[in-house]
Amino acid sequence: MDLSKFTQINPPHRLLMGPGPINADPRVLRAMSSQLLGQYDPAMTQYMNEVMALYRGVFRTENRWTMLIDGTSRAGIEAILLSAIRPSNKVLVPVFGRFGLLLCEIARRCRAEVHTIEVPWGEVFTPDQIEDAIKKVKPRLLLTVQGDTSTTMLQPLEKLGAICKKYGVLFYTDATASLAGNALETDAWGLDAVSAGMQKCLCGPSGTSPITLSPAMEEAIRKRKCVEEGIRTDAHQNGVDEMIYSNYFDLGMIMDYWGPERLNHHTEATSALFGARECARLILEEGLDNSIALHKLHGDALLKGIQGMGLETFGNLQHKMNNVLGVMIPQGVNGDQVRKLMLEDFGIEIGTSFGPLIGKVWRIGTMGYNARKDCVMQTLSALESVLTHFGFRTTQGAAMQAAWDHYNGSR
Amino acid sequence: MDLSKFTQINPPHRLLMGPGPINADPRVLRAMSSQLLGQYDPAMTQYMNEVMALYRGVFRTENRWTMLIDGTSRAGIEAILLSAIRPSNKVLVPVFGRFGLLLCEIARRCRAEVHTIEVPWGEVFTPDQIEDAIKKVKPRLLLTVQGDTSTTMLQPLEKLGAICKKYGVLFYTDATASLAGNALETDAWGLDAVSAGMQKCLCGPSGTSPITLSPAMEEAIRKRKCVEEGIRTDAHQNGVDEMIYSNYFDLGMIMDYWGPERLNHHTEATSALFGARECARLILEEGLDNSIALHKLHGDALLKGIQGMGLETFGNLQHKMNNVLGVMIPQGVNGDQVRKLMLEDFGIEIGTSFGPLIGKVWRIGTMGYNARKDCVMQTLSALESVLTHFGFRTTQGAAMQAAWDHYNGSR
Repeated sequence: MDLSKFTQINPPHRLLMGPGPINADPRVLRAMSSQLLGQYDPAMTQYMNEVMALYRGVFRTENRWTMLIDGTSRAGIEAILLSAIRPSNKVLVPVFGRFGLLLCEIARRCRAEVHTIEVPWGEVFTPDQIEDAIKKVKPRLLLTVQGDTSTTMLQPLEKLGAICKKYGVLFYTDATASLAGNALETDAWGLDAVSAGMQKCLCGPSGTSPITLSPAMEEAIRKRKCVEEGIRTDAHQNGVDEMIYSNYFDLGMIMDYWGPERLNHHTEATSALFGARECARLILEEGLDNSIALHKLHGDALLKGIQGMGLETFGNLQHKMNNVLGVMIPQGVNGDQVRKLMLEDFGIEIGTSFGPLIGKVWRIGTMGYNARKDCVMQTLSALESVLTHFGFRTTQGAAMQAAWDHYNGSR
Repeated sequence: MDLSKFTQINPPHRLLMGPGPINADPRVLRAMSSQLLGQYDPAMTQYMNEVMALYRGVFRTENRWTMLIDGTSRAGIEAILLSAIRPSNKVLVPVFGRFGLLLCEIARRCRAEVHTIEVPWGEVFTPDQIEDAIKKVKPRLLLTVQGDTSTTMLQPLEKLGAICKKYGVLFYTDATASLAGNALETDAWGLDAVSAGMQKCLCGPSGTSPITLSPAMEEAIRKRKCVEEGIRTDAHQNGVDEMIYSNYFDLGMIMDYWGPERLNHHTEATSALFGARECARLILEEGLDNSIALHKLHGDALLKGIQGMGLETFGNLQHKMNNVLGVMIPQGVNGDQVRKLMLEDFGIEIGTSFGPLIGKVWRIGTMGYNARKDCVMQTLSALESVLTHFGFRTTQGAAMQAAWDHYNGSR
């Protein structure tokens, strides 16, 4: 094998302004380069406990079971769905984009009976629409996406917890793309489970998924307890409900690993945990509300700039996520050629789309480490240059001036 | 929330001489601290292709589907088992330690009909024993562990591929703890699937799992193809067999993500991928056979030292893994007190045991970045000091001299 072409890792410099992953905060990457610890080293279990405490702050919850799932954001989703859904359970999924379809897909693989309601891409649901569907379907779980980057829309969740409580429904949301960039109040909104990812507003690399579980969700999962044979003792009692059809995603066992029994399960991904701890620490140090306000500031500045350039946006702006914007590709412009030139000649990545929006919409993110004025200004400037190059007419400098005006509050 | 006690990551210095995780190679940690790339950046997909090529070298295979599963080593196991086992399939698991029981546990959660054969902990199986069981059980899959750290034994695999072929059985091994420290020849031994982990002989942190799949295994998995709704097009055809009951671990979709279609699945854990690439690159640069020989050299030196100290070892030494040794805790000595003093006063971690060996056996590893003379000598020296402190009689200096003699080839 000729190894000469496999040189050491040296990625080209990129400014990642798509819907995520985005550039990681260098402080997070430095934390991840720390040397490892043994799984049960007191220093390691202390770090695990600190991660639990810090993510309680990020999720705004008192939930004891607030921890990491070792895998990407969809590992967190699947761990919750596989552990909570028993085969043939009814679940309701309000679908307003691709990630709602992903929840359906995962729920089907859990052998759930999946019911959906839909709105056109670019819209969200009213609480009434969801309550009506709950009355009709009588699901055991309501599975929602908070921010669906495929449409850039943010589903309002604050009234759904009370509705779920009224009908005895467990309430889950996928906050992968929204957490720390948009308000999420786990306890105040009555959520029973939330999962997230690192690579959006949390400023880290994909690879571990923070989750939180309410006491009601814990109880449902504990009923399915099944301690694995290699470490089971006479003191362990299995639950009364059907077991969870995964070992890796069995949240009962993962709780016992993060809890005082420290029952061996996987070998915690230490570097990812170090990174996740630093992400939460930096956000709480800045203040979670400040983090959300910054995402709104820079998201709005980008929006003004895009509008100033004379471009149309996608979707209902009243329900836009703070951290990502859908931009209509102007007629006569090849969206992929623009993205290619932005990447190759300016080192800036903006996103393409999925499904019905392919070829019609770019998605531009302003999140996490890249929720910064310089990132917004560079992106607008490069986009104006590239569009001009391809013959799209715009007023020179108008985009950047609109963003400046927004930053200066001079409108 | 009082953040003052959450200082930046600063783990105490540890020499990790247990059964894994061990200290990561600093070059791997440095590679992991590189800035991120977008998922479909040509530089990123190039790195993904390079990872596939490099792990073909490490697994000694031509298998096209050689890639990473984003999760710890048991994520790799579960991805293969969930994708390969259809509900009610018969599987045969030769159990010689805890990780054989883990395969049974995961297979049961895949709703397999699980058959086992067992030998006492500390022994392994002959090919005849396994062939006899295959003839009796007629399984669809043979699930083996190559190196089971719970007993420190290495199951010989080289003759099992031909037996499996004879009876039409798919042949899997879990090489988490053995790969790169003990010989493994995926193609020459007729393996259909192998999974591994980073935190043992591969010198990295836990968090991603390299796997390889033979063409026969690929065919079995492709029959269960089920493209997820959010990205399915009319050009996609689903398979004829029952779908895989997981989205995250659906190897069909993971192949389509790593393959030329680059069909969106998870967001690859980029930092973990950078680390895994550096691990494989460093091992192949050194030479895989040299890596294995080094593990044997240092493993044997530790063994001689332990014997020189007058301690008994656990299990059949003829079948010991190169990279971990079971040491009988001498009568009258409290194993946990010894481990505590080793950790607290010498900064050295050695391992405890599982199940029937708890309180009876320590497990001492010499693997990956810690397969080094200085690690062996420091560990022996500290262990002699601690045992002397607790009143165990040994000849002063004999352990270290035995190791030196082994290194100097002067026996």
